Amino acid sequence: MAEYFERVLTDAATNVYEERYEVSSENFLGEAAPPWRMTKFRLHGGKQDGVDVVEMDNGELTVVLLPTRGMGILEAYTSELSLGWQSPVRQVVHPAHVDEETCGGLGWLEGFNEFICRCGPAYHGDPGPDMVPTNTGALHQVTLPLHGTIANTPAARVAVRVRPRPPYELSVVGEVYDTRMFGTCYRMESVVSTVPGSSEFAISDTIENLGGTPSELELLYHCNYGPPLLGEGAQVLAPVEYVCPRDQHTLEESGSWDTYGAPEAGYAERCYFLRLHGDENGKTVVALVTPDGSRAATIRYSVQQLPAFTMWKNTAAEADGYVTGLEPGTDYPNSRRFERERGRVVELPPGGTYETKLRLAVVSDPQKVAKLRDEVDSLVRDKPSEVAAALDPDYCPDA
Amino acid sequence: MAEYFERVLTDAATNVYEERYEVSSENFLGEAAPPWRMTKFRLHGGKQDGVDVVEMDNGELTVVLLPTRGMGILEAYTSELSLGWQSPVRQVVHPAHVDEETCGGLGWLEGFNEFICRCGPAYHGDPGPDMVPTNTGALHQVTLPLHGTIANTPAARVAVRVRPRPPYELSVVGEVYDTRMFGTCYRMESVVSTVPGSSEFAISDTIENLGGTPSELELLYHCNYGPPLLGEGAQVLAPVEYVCPRDQHTLEESGSWDTYGAPEAGYAERCYFLRLHGDENGKTVVALVTPDGSRAATIRYSVQQLPAFTMWKNTAAEADGYVTGLEPGTDYPNSRRFERERGRVVELPPGGTYETKLRLAVVSDPQKVAKLRDEVDSLVRDKPSEVAAALDPDYCPDA
Amino acid sequence: MAEYFERVLTDAATNVYEERYEVSSENFLGEAAPPWRMTKFRLHGGKQDGVDVVEMDNGELTVVLLPTRGMGILEAYTSELSLGWQSPVRQVVHPAHVDEETCGGLGWLEGFNEFICRCGPAYHGDPGPDMVPTNTGALHQVTLPLHGTIANTPAARVAVRVRPRPPYELSVVGEVYDTRMFGTCYRMESVVSTVPGSSEFAISDTIENLGGTPSELELLYHCNYGPPLLGEGAQVLAPVEYVCPRDQHTLEESGSWDTYGAPEAGYAERCYFLRLHGDENGKTVVALVTPDGSRAATIRYSVQQLPAFTMWKNTAAEADGYVTGLEPGTDYPNSRRFERERGRVVELPPGGTYETKLRLAVVSDPQKVAKLRDEVDSLVRDKPSEVAAALDPDYCPDA
Repeated sequence: MAEYFERVLTDAATNVYEERYEVSSENFLGEAAPPWRMTKFRLHGGKQDGVDVVEMDNGELTVVLLPTRGMGILEAYTSELSLGWQSPVRQVVHPAHVDEETCGGLGWLEGFNEFICRCGPAYHGDPGPDMVPTNTGALHQVTLPLHGTIANTPAARVAVRVRPRPPYELSVVGEVYDTRMFGTCYRMESVVSTVPGSSEFAISDTIENLGGTPSELELLYHCNYGPPLLGEGAQVLAPVEYVCPRDQHTLEESGSWDTYGAPEAGYAERCYFLRLHGDENGKTVVALVTPDGSRAATIRYSVQQLPAFTMWKNTAAEADGYVTGLEPGTDYPNSRRFERERGRVVELPPGGTYETKLRLAVVSDPQKVAKLRDEVDSLVRDKPSEVAAALDPDYCPDA
Repeated sequence: MAEYFERVLTDAATNVYEERYEVSSENFLGEAAPPWRMTKFRLHGGKQDGVDVVEMDNGELTVVLLPTRGMGILEAYTSELSLGWQSPVRQVVHPAHVDEETCGGLGWLEGFNEFICRCGPAYHGDPGPDMVPTNTGALHQVTLPLHGTIANTPAARVAVRVRPRPPYELSVVGEVYDTRMFGTCYRMESVVSTVPGSSEFAISDTIENLGGTPSELELLYHCNYGPPLLGEGAQVLAPVEYVCPRDQHTLEESGSWDTYGAPEAGYAERCYFLRLHGDENGKTVVALVTPDGSRAATIRYSVQQLPAFTMWKNTAAEADGYVTGLEPGTDYPNSRRFERERGRVVELPPGGTYETKLRLAVVSDPQKVAKLRDEVDSLVRDKPSEVAAALDPDYCPDA
Repeated sequence: MAEYFERVLTDAATNVYEERYEVSSENFLGEAAPPWRMTKFRLHGGKQDGVDVVEMDNGELTVVLLPTRGMGILEAYTSELSLGWQSPVRQVVHPAHVDEETCGGLGWLEGFNEFICRCGPAYHGDPGPDMVPTNTGALHQVTLPLHGTIANTPAARVAVRVRPRPPYELSVVGEVYDTRMFGTCYRMESVVSTVPGSSEFAISDTIENLGGTPSELELLYHCNYGPPLLGEGAQVLAPVEYVCPRDQHTLEESGSWDTYGAPEAGYAERCYFLRLHGDENGKTVVALVTPDGSRAATIRYSVQQLPAFTMWKNTAAEADGYVTGLEPGTDYPNSRRFERERGRVVELPPGGTYETKLRLAVVSDPQKVAKLRDEVDSLVRDKPSEVAAALDPDYCPDA
C-alpha cells in the first residue's frame, strides 16, 4: 500500500470528473485514526447551479471547500462552533453569475460569502486605474476591479488525498489556472489538510508564474468571522508592530481598533493596516476572541511570506453582514498602483513560485485562550508597538 | 389530505433539485377538476443550456415559466391563441450568457424574449448615471445598466402547488434572491397561479428588503404582445387619466397613440407614459384588442400598487421584433436618477415588503370584448382624460 | 437508404440534446470507405465545464470541433502532425467564463486557444469606439471589444452527417444564432467536412442577416499555428500583391516579414496586412512551411469571399504562446470604424447571406511542399507584388 491514497475528482486535462464521491475511515479498516469522511458533490439550482463542493470531516472539524470558486473555503465547523459568517449573499455563487466589472468594479461582492477566499493573484484590493499591456505590447489604462480573479476561477484539477496511517492526514488538493493570452498567467496549487480528530487545518499554496516574462503578484487571504465568535466586546489579539487606520473615519475610532461593537445598521466599514511581529523564524499568530473570552479562532502564518495584515471591521447590521476580516497578505488591499509605488507588490520571474502556509484553528477552552494571550504578548514583548495617530501616506491613499 | 399538495423542485438551501418532474390531474383521481398537468424540465444545448422550465397547463391555458430567468413567463397559450412575441432572440438565454454591461449598458437585450419579464428591483429603465455606495460607505458614480438584474437571476427555490379540491388551483412558487454585499438585497416570492379550465392566470409577487438599511425599489412588468393579437389596426384599451409621449418622435404620432401600424422596417420605438384611472379600490384594466375586434388580452392590477403604466410601441419589421409592451410599474422606465428626482422611486425600510398582483387573461369572444370596452369606458367616465400636447418635464428626460 | 445519414445532437428549438454519441464506419458495414469515427462528448470540471466537443476522425486526420465556442476548431491532427498551438489558456473555456468587456475590451483573450476561431460577425479587430443604435434609434458611442461575439456563442443546432458511399464524406453541421433585440442578428450555418482517409478538411460557412434592416458584417478566420510547424526559419508562402506592416515596430522588421524567429521572451507581436493574388476564379493558397522545408499546412480560399489577409507573428516565449496567425477575412482586424471609413465593411441586406469556404490541409511530403511553392509562385508570376516601405494610412491606424 502506498503512503498516500489519492483520488482525482476533477482533471480538465484528461476530462476526469466525478459528480459524487465519498471516502471515509470505513474504507481503511484496521487503521486507528479517529473516524473521518471526505465527500464531494455538486450543487444544483439557483445561482449555485454547477458549483462543486468538497467536505472534509476529520471527526472533530469539518472544512467545506469550493473548487469551483478557486478552492475557497465556505465554512469550517465543529459540533460547537462555526467559522464563517452570514453574508447577504445567500447561495454559493457560481462564477458565471459574477461580473467583476459591474458597479464600478465591485461586482466581486455579488459572490462574496466564504469564510476564506483568496484575493489576487495579479491584483487585489480596491478598484483603481492601472496601466496594463495590450496584445501589441503597448500599455493602456484600465480600471482593475475589486480583489482579482482567483475566487471566481474553477479549479482545473481536484483530488482528495489520505495518509491512512500515522501521521494521519486528510487533504484536498486543487489546481487553479488563472491564465490569459497577453496577460498574467498563474497556476496555484493549493493543499488544504487536516489531521483526524484535530480542531485545526492548514492551507499550503504555491503560486507559479507560468508566463515567459516577470509578473506582478498580489495575494491576500480574506478570512472572515461572524457570530458567534464575533460579538460586542470581541477582541483581536495580534503582536502589533504598527497599526494604521485606512481613512479618516477609521482614524476616529482607532483608540478601540482591536475591539468590536454590536451590530449597527448603517455602520461604514473600518479598515486597519498592520505590520505584525513574528518569532525568530517569522512565525506569527492572530486571534479573534469571543466577548466572554472563552473561545477563539486563530490564524498562524509567516510574516516573511505574508508581511501585510489587514483588519476589516464591518460591524454593520446582521442583515448586512456583521463580520470582521483578518487578512494576511503579501500587501494591502489598496489599488495595485498605490501598492506598487510603495514597493510592496511581489514580482515573480518566469517559472518563479511563491509559497504561503496558514494554519487555522478553533480554541474552545478558556485556559487555552489565556495561553494564546500569553503567546501573543511574548511575540511583541520588548519590541516596538505603535498605533498611528494620523493617516500614514505610506499606507493610506487618502492621506 | 392537506389542503395543498406541494412539491419542491429546487431548493438551494438544502440542495434539492429535480431535473424532471410531472404532476397532473391523473394523480388526483376522484377529483372533478378539468384535466391539468404541470411539467418541469431542463433545457440543454445552445444558449439555453441549463435553463429550467415549468409548464403549467390548466386544460385550457398553458403558462410557461422560467425559474432560471427570475421566474419570468416565456409565453402563455391556449389552443387558439398565443400570448408573447417573436423576438430576434431565438433561444431562452441562460443568464450566464448575458452581460448587462455590454453595449453601453444594453446587454439585457441579448436575453429579452419573454412574454412577461420583470425589470428591477433596485433599478430599471434606460441606462444612466447614478450614485451608489461603495464598501467604504462613500458614494461613487456608476452607469446603471438597462432594466436591472432580476430577469437574469435564477430562482433559489421553486415549488409547484396544487389545491386538488374546490376551489381548484395550480401554482408555481418561486423565490429569487437578488442580493450582494454592500448593495441592495431583495427577496422576491412569486406565486403564479391559475384555475383549471380557465383562460387566465395571476401573478402575486412580494418583494422584501432583506438589508439592514432602507433601500430603493423600482419594479416594472414588461408584458409583451406580438401577432396574432398585435397587427395593423390593433388597439389598446385603457382608462386613461394622462398620456405623455416620451420623446419628440413619439409626440409626432401621439394622435394615434392607442392604435398600431403594420410592421415597418426601421421603425423607431415609440413610448408613452400613462396614468390610469382605477375603480374605488384602485383596480384597473388594460387590454390589447385585435384588429378585427374579436379577441383581446387583458391585464388587471391595482394602480395603488403599480401607479405608472408604460406603453411601448415597437412596430418594427417582424424580423426585428414586431411587438408592444404593456407595462405596469411602480414608476417609469427612465433612469433611476430621473425617477427619484420626481419622487417616484419607492423606498423600502429594512424588512419592508412591497406586494403586487396582476391577472392576465385571454378574451376570445367578440361579445366579451365589447363588454371589456364598456368596462374600460366606465372607469374613465366623468373623469379627466388628457393626452399631453407637448413633452412633459415631469415624465420626459428630453423635455 | 438515404444519400446522407444525419443525426441531430443538439437542437435548441426542439430541446434535443445528446451528451454522448458515437458513429463510425463500423455502423456502415459493406461500405469500402477507410475506417472513420465521429464522437461527441461533453467536458466537465474547471473552466471547461459544459463545453461540448465533436471529434471527427477520418482515419488519417482528426478535426476537433467546439460547438459551445461558436463551432471553433480546437485542433486538427494526424498521427504525425498537430495543427494548432499551445496557448497560455490551458482549458477549453466555456463562454460563461469570458467577459469580453474586461481589461479594456480584451476579455476575449481569456478564452483564446483554438487552432481556428472565427471573429465577428458584427465586428472584429482591435477594441475601439464606434456608434451603435440604442433601442430608441438614437446612436450612442460604445467601445466595441476585441474580435466580436461568435467565438463565445454556443451553437443552437449541431448535427453529424455521413455520406457512407462514394463520394464518401463526413460533416459536422452547426448553427449559431448571434442575435439581440435592437442589434445585429446573424445566423451562421457552418459545415465542416472531410473525406475519409484524406489529410484535409473544409469549412463552408453561410452567414445570414436575420434582421429587418441592413447590417454590417466583419468576418475573420483566425487560423493559428504553433510548433512543430512553426519554428525558427519557418516561412509563409503567399501570392502577395501587397504587404503592409501594421505599425512602426512591425515596419522595422518587414524585410523578413515572411520568416519566423525563434521563441523570444517579451517579443511584441508583429502584424502584416496583405492583399493576395488569386487565380482567374479568385482561388488562392497560403502555406506555413516548416524550417526544414519538409512539411507544410495550407489554407485555400477565395479572395473574392475573403479579400483581406492578415499575418500575425507572435514569436514570443513558448510559455506566452509562440504562434502565428494566418487570417483570411472580409477585412482587417482594425477597429470597425477604421475599416468602415476605408470601405471594407460588408453590408448585408435583410435576409442577405455571405458565404465563405476554406480548405485546410496538411502536407507531409517534401516533394509536395516543392509543388506548393511552384503553385504559389505561379499565382503571383507577372503580377505586381509589393512590400510597403512605410505605414500605409489605408491600412494602418498609426500611419
